[in-house]
Amino acid sequence: MGASTRPALRPGVTPWCERTTSVVRMAALSGPRIRHSVAFALHHAEGSEEEAGFLDALRALANIPGVEAFEVVTEISPKNNYRHGVSMEFADRAAYDAYDAHPDHRSFVAQRWVPEVVDFLEIDFAATTQH
Amino acid sequence: MGASTRPALRPGVTPWCERTTSVVRMAALSGPRIRHSVAFALHHAEGSEEEAGFLDALRALANIPGVEAFEVVTEISPKNNYRHGVSMEFADRAAYDAYDAHPDHRSFVAQRWVPEVVDFLEIDFAATTQH
Repeated sequence: MGASTRPALRPGVTPWCERTTSVVRMAALSGPRIRHSVAFALHHAEGSEEEAGFLDALRALANIPGVEAFEVVTEISPKNNYRHGVSMEFADRAAYDAYDAHPDHRSFVAQRWVPEVVDFLEIDFAATTQH
Repeated sequence: MGASTRPALRPGVTPWCERTTSVVRMAALSGPRIRHSVAFALHHAEGSEEEAGFLDALRALANIPGVEAFEVVTEISPKNNYRHGVSMEFADRAAYDAYDAHPDHRSFVAQRWVPEVVDFLEIDFAATTQH
């Protein structure tokens, strides 16, 4: 794959390396960057309209300022009872805190998350300083 | 940042977008790709030599064939009791299964993981087919 297939970056344009998902691996965390993941299960039946509606509402959180690398995913491990996941990254703690306090996030948690989620676990990964 | 700062890809060379970690966001999952994350806590004291030795042994799992985007990280959420994490990606289920069955992985689990880990949770994320 030659350089000629990669367009130049322009402001607001998703870099090539993020769009060519089939060959690109996850970038490592570094500095103050935080990867926030939540695994969860819903009251709704699998494949139901209610499930789809919840996941669509969840996807709207990607529009909150500071949210990067946002993904709604499927949890496939047989070793836990979660069935869905959401993953996002923040440049630093301040960006994470601003997301947490954002009215759209607070509203989603109160109106959708609390009534529709059965169980969940939050995991926040940050770079480890090697010994 | 112009295209001129990005070298052409050559076989075996890590793409630019993976090396410039300070500005690169995690690439989204797609197709059969799986992101395997484990959050865990150790019996060892924080900052101890025993902890460092365990994490070094854990990092050696990155050498097992099929393991991609391997990271040992710190778990920083106050909402759970895990203190460390490890994250890796596999191209597909076959690569994941091969890793799981690899003698180096099995040996690490038996000799280090079982005796030294207090508690852990495995989460496997895969791309969601949107409704």
